[in-house]
Amino acid sequence: MLATVIVAPGEIEVIRTADPSIEAPTDAIVRITHCCICGSDLWAYRGVAHRGVRQPIGHEFIGIVEETGSEVTTLRKGDAVVAPFSWACGKCDACRRGLPTSCPLGGFWGRTTGAGGAQAEAIRVPFADATLVAVPRGSDSKSARALLGLTDILCTGYHAALCANVSAGETVAVVGDGPVGLCAVMIARHLGAGRIFLFGRHASRLALGLSLGATDAVNVDTVDPAQHIRDLNRGFAADSVLECVGTEMSLRTSVLLARDGGAVGYVGVPHSIDKVPLGKMFGRNIGLRGGIAPSRTYIPRLLPSVLNGALDASSIFDLALPLAEAAQGYQAMNCRQATKVMLTI
Amino acid sequence: MLATVIVAPGEIEVIRTADPSIEAPTDAIVRITHCCICGSDLWAYRGVAHRGVRQPIGHEFIGIVEETGSEVTTLRKGDAVVAPFSWACGKCDACRRGLPTSCPLGGFWGRTTGAGGAQAEAIRVPFADATLVAVPRGSDSKSARALLGLTDILCTGYHAALCANVSAGETVAVVGDGPVGLCAVMIARHLGAGRIFLFGRHASRLALGLSLGATDAVNVDTVDPAQHIRDLNRGFAADSVLECVGTEMSLRTSVLLARDGGAVGYVGVPHSIDKVPLGKMFGRNIGLRGGIAPSRTYIPRLLPSVLNGALDASSIFDLALPLAEAAQGYQAMNCRQATKVMLTI
Repeated sequence: MLATVIVAPGEIEVIRTADPSIEAPTDAIVRITHCCICGSDLWAYRGVAHRGVRQPIGHEFIGIVEETGSEVTTLRKGDAVVAPFSWACGKCDACRRGLPTSCPLGGFWGRTTGAGGAQAEAIRVPFADATLVAVPRGSDSKSARALLGLTDILCTGYHAALCANVSAGETVAVVGDGPVGLCAVMIARHLGAGRIFLFGRHASRLALGLSLGATDAVNVDTVDPAQHIRDLNRGFAADSVLECVGTEMSLRTSVLLARDGGAVGYVGVPHSIDKVPLGKMFGRNIGLRGGIAPSRTYIPRLLPSVLNGALDASSIFDLALPLAEAAQGYQAMNCRQATKVMLTI
Repeated sequence: MLATVIVAPGEIEVIRTADPSIEAPTDAIVRITHCCICGSDLWAYRGVAHRGVRQPIGHEFIGIVEETGSEVTTLRKGDAVVAPFSWACGKCDACRRGLPTSCPLGGFWGRTTGAGGAQAEAIRVPFADATLVAVPRGSDSKSARALLGLTDILCTGYHAALCANVSAGETVAVVGDGPVGLCAVMIARHLGAGRIFLFGRHASRLALGLSLGATDAVNVDTVDPAQHIRDLNRGFAADSVLECVGTEMSLRTSVLLARDGGAVGYVGVPHSIDKVPLGKMFGRNIGLRGGIAPSRTYIPRLLPSVLNGALDASSIFDLALPLAEAAQGYQAMNCRQATKVMLTI
């Protein structure tokens, strides 16, 4: 099959490699129909996050079950499925608590040593019953893109919102106009937030944010975000801040955007964050909660709204390429020519 | 009157100074009957926290209303009162949200420039109606100590517990065996926590912690806390961790003590915290929430349990001295000869 590997920072190759096969009776093999490139893949592409030499890459995919191990009971060949970006056993304490990302038997495609990557024609899925979610078989590119949103970005935006206690009628600030930030806007609107400020740096993405539910889209390069939100919001800062970038600067901005007693939900994978403004957080009682989203827990919860179109991330995927052109997809996302790239197989 | 000032780090003096007087119609003057020295005063005593030259010090007191301004309606001369460690207007957005510590008109005794200190014979209380809480007139030293607990340490322990989502039946770890940590133990028991681990460094305080409700008291100098809690708790870490110290080491320990998806409630005033282990928190979805406790919000909530003896912090006050000997009190607390010092007037 064809599979994408990261040879070295900046160097993506689609190679021919052996098809995956069932290794454990709880495995399934999924033939991938659509997958995508994640902002977190870019950290590896830029050399900030370490990857092995020629490590398979990619963790967001939907597809069709090709084969199941003898102990897989809820899925069978031909089922259309959406996958969270990690697998988990479904039975341990962490899984039962709804935190499969902390499953001791779990792992991450494109990250865990020895695991396959999801920018490929097929993939082995451990604990298939607990990991995959069956979905209606999509027929077009738009529905594929909407479902792809569930693999990571929608769930990650939702995680930020839950961690920041987004509530009906309240003021939300979303920091970051990337795919996760744009999904966070959509989720905040879905949860009934009153006013939704999106802070970013890219005119086209900010405009997209407005169409997805932001009431205000603000370029952080032109204003002081903390002052701006108070000016526009009768002196008040945000009840909930959704940090969707992962840098020290964005975390600091997020804390400044929160009202006293408010909460920052952070889902941007932390990179180069040396200092957290703990003194400010302490004096103003600002909570910080977040982390890697337990997507598998959220997919069934969000799926109905995705299927009925209430949560439609399809417009965030603004470039579709065949898998063989994955390298061009990385390049386009890295230089901001594309917001989110879908690869088709 | 007599009042305590901090001349310089390590140098406490009780001086004779002018009596406070009503400055605004919402003020009251309180004749202090009992006050105490706080662990946070020690940061100033040690020169870590900055204070002005000869700045009045102290913020925990109970007493009798001596005089009220013309607009004070709920209190009158002769009322016994307990005060939170800060004043607030009671009317602004922050006050209405129950976060008086963020009141723009509020302040902190012994901290805010120009404010009096509470280690004194009398004090001016701004916004007396919103700040003071009337209590039954205590008759003995034990009830005075129990009430003094409400001014800061009980409320601060309670804040840690709320911020860490302490719930009935769950496992709690308290980091720090100082007065706040000991109160946090009491509060965790009060809220129905199943197992309560107290981590500290002082045999006598750890023993006191056991008598106040800890199920396990652990000297962090002799074991690896994170391993120890898992060994004793069927492999599980704490659902809620109450950080009651405020150093980088204690924060790091707290994160290691939390189970994945758990929460750290931090109330130790952060000092010299350069790095927060955000990467670990992200991967394990550990929340961090806390700050300066909104005591005024909590006092009415906790008062009934203090009056009926269910929450009794009196045993934490293990040294009583007359106000004139405040300097000896600081010395005793600083070299750990006393856990918490009450000054009597």
